[in-house]
Amino acid sequence: MKLDAEIALAHRLAEAARAEIRPLFRTEMDGEAKDDATPVTIADRNAEEAMRKLIEAEFSGDGIIGEEFDEKLGVSGRQWVLDPIDGTTAFLAGRPIFGTLIALVVEGFPVLGVIDQPILGERWLGIAGQGTTFNGQPVKTRPCPKLDMATIATTGPHYFSVEQGDKFMALAGQTDHKRMVMGGDCYNYAALASGHLDIVAEAGLKLHDYAALVPVVEGAGGVMSDWSGEPLHAGSDGTVLALGDPARLEDVVEVLA
Amino acid sequence: MKLDAEIALAHRLAEAARAEIRPLFRTEMDGEAKDDATPVTIADRNAEEAMRKLIEAEFSGDGIIGEEFDEKLGVSGRQWVLDPIDGTTAFLAGRPIFGTLIALVVEGFPVLGVIDQPILGERWLGIAGQGTTFNGQPVKTRPCPKLDMATIATTGPHYFSVEQGDKFMALAGQTDHKRMVMGGDCYNYAALASGHLDIVAEAGLKLHDYAALVPVVEGAGGVMSDWSGEPLHAGSDGTVLALGDPARLEDVVEVLA
Repeated sequence: MKLDAEIALAHRLAEAARAEIRPLFRTEMDGEAKDDATPVTIADRNAEEAMRKLIEAEFSGDGIIGEEFDEKLGVSGRQWVLDPIDGTTAFLAGRPIFGTLIALVVEGFPVLGVIDQPILGERWLGIAGQGTTFNGQPVKTRPCPKLDMATIATTGPHYFSVEQGDKFMALAGQTDHKRMVMGGDCYNYAALASGHLDIVAEAGLKLHDYAALVPVVEGAGGVMSDWSGEPLHAGSDGTVLALGDPARLEDVVEVLA
Repeated sequence: MKLDAEIALAHRLAEAARAEIRPLFRTEMDGEAKDDATPVTIADRNAEEAMRKLIEAEFSGDGIIGEEFDEKLGVSGRQWVLDPIDGTTAFLAGRPIFGTLIALVVEGFPVLGVIDQPILGERWLGIAGQGTTFNGQPVKTRPCPKLDMATIATTGPHYFSVEQGDKFMALAGQTDHKRMVMGGDCYNYAALASGHLDIVAEAGLKLHDYAALVPVVEGAGGVMSDWSGEPLHAGSDGTVLALGDPARLEDVVEVLA
């Protein structure tokens, strides 16, 4: 798929989001502020507005699905899917490992994905059928010959239902669990694409949480699916699995089933 | 307490650790490497060795307690307590929110603490009875008028015993738990000192994990204790609590008791 103009736009979207987000990171949280007027909600909204304007100016026929505003229906069969700040709790905790997520979805499947860390100036870009880059340099997932050598990550057990939590723990118990790491949001998938993690398993994610991750992870040699091993698309059930080594998919899905 | 020479040394120790750690961050992990020859264990050992040499050259009578090597007994009643990489799982996962911890303990109580993030070049310095600084600028914890407004953090539930996990969940349930954040290791205490978090609760920590945190948090206006509210010292039981607003200590200890 030839996506030069879309790739160029994705970079401009990420830059526009950075400009809105950076000045608000680690700014004071007014204890009395309503939930819709905190630094993170302002940054979230302003970044999404800035990105929507750029998309509408260049690809007016494309739909836009963002976390903060209503869906804009398009006529092209394509949607831009935006999450200006994935990891709002990390942002609020002053951790520079949240991310801006930008995806282009065609016929329900993500074909372009960006994970951008505005504070550190880190950008992972994945395009379906092409290699993933980190700040312009190719990255690859790492091999994981056996499940008990895998490092697993998840943002937190409080995002699982009881049943999902039990399944996650069954999986974690078969990995190298001394290295298990919590927190991280989208940054875990970026780290997996760069070869620093082997498995990320989460649940309750929405399209704007996972659409951008798929091209990044798969372009680096990994695989993403739901917990049954089915490819992620606009109608997925919110369970999300990323593996650096696709050869481990069968083992992992067996444990999660 | 007049500690000018010790403060100058602490900065040099942090710089020496940075020089050892930075080149090994995000370097390739050999799948076949033994646990004692991975990038993180090499960085850990080299950083501690470099720091030990500087301490021995300048304060040869002080003891040294480090994570990686045997204790060096001193004759001064003072110990330097070192954890070159607190958050080895974060380091391995490619997250730049691990930290180098440096403390000076006098008669069992920490009087100087450094939390240094080598990759981002961030350094929190706390001295007993003086204000805490972040890269040289004063920082303060934030007020937390009510427990249900508190943001709580912990590195992960897998570090708790079942009983500790139940207590933590009882506490988390009384906070603003939508904002609860997992992962983070020492970075949570630094974030609390800078006013981005209200409560950190952990268990199973050793002296080298918590000694440096106390002067940083308390110099910023917060308070640290074990889960019974007792001050932390060399013989504490490993439960650790940090609060940005000392006025909440009684409420929190009541829930954890």
